[in-house]
Amino acid sequence: MHLYFSIDNIMNNFTFWSPTKFVFGRDTESRTGSLVKEFGGTKALIVYGGGSVVKSGLLDRVRKSLDEAGVEWEELGGICPNPTDDRVYEGIGLVRNTGIDFLLAVGGGSVIDTAKGIACGVLYDGDFWDFYCGKKVVEKAMPVGVVLTIPAAGSEGSGNSVITKKDGLIKLSLRTESALRPRFSVMNPELTFTLPPYQTACGIVDMMAHIFERYFSNTEGCETTDRVAEGLLTAIMNEAHKVFADPRDYEARANIMWSSTLAHNGLCGTGREEDWASHFMEHELSAIYGVAHGAGLAVVNPAWMSYVSRTNPAKVAQFAVRVMGVIPEYRPEREIAEEGIKRLKEFYRGIGMPVALGELGIENPDIARLVEKLHEHKGNPIGGYVKLTPADTEEIYKLML
Amino acid sequence: MHLYFSIDNIMNNFTFWSPTKFVFGRDTESRTGSLVKEFGGTKALIVYGGGSVVKSGLLDRVRKSLDEAGVEWEELGGICPNPTDDRVYEGIGLVRNTGIDFLLAVGGGSVIDTAKGIACGVLYDGDFWDFYCGKKVVEKAMPVGVVLTIPAAGSEGSGNSVITKKDGLIKLSLRTESALRPRFSVMNPELTFTLPPYQTACGIVDMMAHIFERYFSNTEGCETTDRVAEGLLTAIMNEAHKVFADPRDYEARANIMWSSTLAHNGLCGTGREEDWASHFMEHELSAIYGVAHGAGLAVVNPAWMSYVSRTNPAKVAQFAVRVMGVIPEYRPEREIAEEGIKRLKEFYRGIGMPVALGELGIENPDIARLVEKLHEHKGNPIGGYVKLTPADTEEIYKLML
Repeated sequence: MHLYFSIDNIMNNFTFWSPTKFVFGRDTESRTGSLVKEFGGTKALIVYGGGSVVKSGLLDRVRKSLDEAGVEWEELGGICPNPTDDRVYEGIGLVRNTGIDFLLAVGGGSVIDTAKGIACGVLYDGDFWDFYCGKKVVEKAMPVGVVLTIPAAGSEGSGNSVITKKDGLIKLSLRTESALRPRFSVMNPELTFTLPPYQTACGIVDMMAHIFERYFSNTEGCETTDRVAEGLLTAIMNEAHKVFADPRDYEARANIMWSSTLAHNGLCGTGREEDWASHFMEHELSAIYGVAHGAGLAVVNPAWMSYVSRTNPAKVAQFAVRVMGVIPEYRPEREIAEEGIKRLKEFYRGIGMPVALGELGIENPDIARLVEKLHEHKGNPIGGYVKLTPADTEEIYKLML
Repeated sequence: MHLYFSIDNIMNNFTFWSPTKFVFGRDTESRTGSLVKEFGGTKALIVYGGGSVVKSGLLDRVRKSLDEAGVEWEELGGICPNPTDDRVYEGIGLVRNTGIDFLLAVGGGSVIDTAKGIACGVLYDGDFWDFYCGKKVVEKAMPVGVVLTIPAAGSEGSGNSVITKKDGLIKLSLRTESALRPRFSVMNPELTFTLPPYQTACGIVDMMAHIFERYFSNTEGCETTDRVAEGLLTAIMNEAHKVFADPRDYEARANIMWSSTLAHNGLCGTGREEDWASHFMEHELSAIYGVAHGAGLAVVNPAWMSYVSRTNPAKVAQFAVRVMGVIPEYRPEREIAEEGIKRLKEFYRGIGMPVALGELGIENPDIARLVEKLHEHKGNPIGGYVKLTPADTEEIYKLML
């Protein structure tokens, strides 16, 4: 075991800049055209995914709204989950040849992240992958707008993008302070009424994980940020139960959708170092075994919490008490933490999520390879709340069995 | 009694647009010059208040930062609390004659609100007061930047401004969606170490009131917004105790400062109708009796809560339980609400705030005049959680005796 952490790290300086205009509520997609125009677009590339936006009529409504606003458009459809670099290259080629000046993502995180990859790639002479592997810093990007259909990734309010390189199975995330923040995001909760339960649950796990990665920090003294994070986690879990009882419950869908944005626009990280080890560990599962990101996180998060509680239980215990409703009863922090983790797993199971690799369909995981790839891609150690070496991450993957 | 309210009002459509770049932490004022430049300023008007920014050396550091960035500057000093229209007119004249293209407010809400008045007034042919009395809508404004010294008004993150007309003692607030949002706000908690206890307490009451005005809404179903609001209120009260124990406690000052921004940048109002009756009632106290806004609110808020609990106790009871730690014990909502209000008053008293008009130095208030002016300025009825007619507001003023 090579664990170390510091608790003398107090509230850090920060910049919080979330300039996106969030247009939230029923029928808001009808305002898409005028929003593109408001932010200077005259010809948009509509980026979208599979059949649901076509079947639901959403794509038609967006096209109509663009037409009405006098905004021209082209399309790039068929973006898949865990989006790959090939579609980004395709988009860059499309934009360069057609005078497109605005990227309009209609979909969830995969679609938005692809649009962001195109947005920074178009204005760069080299390979857009340079930004994702850290060779270059994004200085400028085309404007991106969003019509959100899946509350999960939080990309509608973040400056981030995650793309997988098809060749080498590398899934890398790019973070920018503001260059890749969408200019606007249209968020109509009604568009999520038809989201299947499994995808709804994956989204819920993902947004909770975005909060966890910031909440579990070795930076002390950020009470404001802690209370906001705990409030969002509480809201998400309460509303999740309502959504599974009635998928067309507008308020429940709306609260989950809005929470997913606040989970990832930076608010929950203000003043502290973030962790992200769990996301990194999940990215390897996604890249190697092709699992859905949210389902993977439902397995990783509790295992990670359990492992770090062995040496640094304080914040996990705080989460257990303040979010999971555990009564401390003068017990040791680690015991309180474990009860919180147990309740979190019960919540995940209750919404149909796996909490072990076997339930993900990975019966005999190649842990050595996962660990090797993880640290090859993300360095050594990873994380902040507890810094994790390969010996640690191996243990955590084993806890997922 | 003419009370009515509706509970069938569920989560509303909303736009949340908080584009301000918040630069938070130690020594951040040294970045002021480069921030003005980043947002296109070449010549700034530094707007400031009394002696403290001069004595502390802050003004010098800001000037130096502007010089280093090659930004020219002029000054408009001596802005007073409850800022008046005459200084706005003066600023408009100054800007029009000197080629100034950026307004830099160094101070608290009064200074920022004056800068905002100038910002919209300069680009308008008529009287800037037209915007405040609702005759005109702000369509464009000069860019405003902020170096914040007092966490209270939240103007560093809002699109709002409150100005008092010197002649007629009318205090009116102007709300814009984005035109008057500062481009950036520099927030160094160390600048608040020397804030006197009374001013610190006034600020705390003010930021809490900004949350109350949004939290007490007749719109149901906004769990995300509720949990965030409750988290902020909890953080503010916890950190307040630390600040009064040690005024140089960095984390406590920082949490309070950041909370004051989130209290008023619109986050706590997402999805619901806001109330603002308490602020309106306080504005009349300020205008007629010249009391500090925060101290006035400490008297108004509990009286308002107590009155509305007579007919609509639900949300006040929720506040009592979730923020003030009241154990419900199967009691009627109104009783729970009253215990929460009692605890809130104790908190206010504990930080040296008044909770009755007498403690504000107003022994024989002219309630008839307060009520008359209130509804003359703000209409009839006022508020949303419970709609208040003159008969109601008279009762509320009486509860402050």
